Amino acid sequence: MNDLAKLFEHTLMDVYYAEKQILKALPKLANKAKSLELKKAFETHLTQTEAQVKRLEKIFQLLGKSAKSVKCEAITGILKEGDEVVEEFGDSTALDAGMIAAAQTVEHYEMARYGALRTWAEELKMSEAAILLEQTLLEERATDQLLSKLAESKINLKAA
Amino acid sequence: MNDLAKLFEHTLMDVYYAEKQILKALPKLANKAKSLELKKAFETHLTQTEAQVKRLEKIFQLLGKSAKSVKCEAITGILKEGDEVVEEFGDSTALDAGMIAAAQTVEHYEMARYGALRTWAEELKMSEAAILLEQTLLEERATDQLLSKLAESKINLKAA
Repeated sequence: MNDLAKLFEHTLMDVYYAEKQILKALPKLANKAKSLELKKAFETHLTQTEAQVKRLEKIFQLLGKSAKSVKCEAITGILKEGDEVVEEFGDSTALDAGMIAAAQTVEHYEMARYGALRTWAEELKMSEAAILLEQTLLEERATDQLLSKLAESKINLKAA
Repeated sequence: MNDLAKLFEHTLMDVYYAEKQILKALPKLANKAKSLELKKAFETHLTQTEAQVKRLEKIFQLLGKSAKSVKCEAITGILKEGDEVVEEFGDSTALDAGMIAAAQTVEHYEMARYGALRTWAEELKMSEAAILLEQTLLEERATDQLLSKLAESKINLKAA
């Protein structure tokens, strides 16, 4: 196994851990959201995340390995920051705006991770893995854009 | 002060903390980089980050406040994950590829933060702040693209 393949596998375990944490965080965010549209956006992304976890498991299988996690300090910190916004702005009309922004830091983290993994998969000639990673990358981008649109069209105005 | 203005100020303190941590991390990354081009990219971004910190201080000034930080758990976690890659892949030909990917998680975090801050500034009719935030957002995006290009054209191939 060459060095890039080792880095690929390490990062795959890292993002597998991250997705599992996100699966736990999304129902809490949906529960706190005041806007019904935002609640629905979080619920839809939960379903997407479940499929993204399955895609990662498929990639481990392609590598001939069982799916494994390695603790991802980044997602731990990002989600902790989201919890703090919920605590600090729980009674504020800006809560939904704060939660959207926090969710977008999660999406952006994933976009960075899936972007690197997809490129590495291509360079390692793992074309099936690259396609799966690209699918997830596109979903994360679309979710980020949906959240921006929701914030700009409605949510922020309620708090301003 | 309305609720969105409070969220704006809180997030401004959060990203001010983040930029100060990034200022400390970049020289360490530059020092570890094996590729001269990557070393230079980190050094250039250090200079940019110094200007970005000054822009944040200018925005605090526009708010009539002194610049203040609030601990940002997200950047702490993201940078810790970067340190781990350096430790784990320190002797690997994939070190530069791993550092680029880690730096891109930093850039993406900042893109999410500056995107939200810029939109909020517009909605709060703080046009001068919005322009300053947009400048930084464009720099973060450009840095992310530069790192992708560097990885794809040279760095990854050395490790594959």
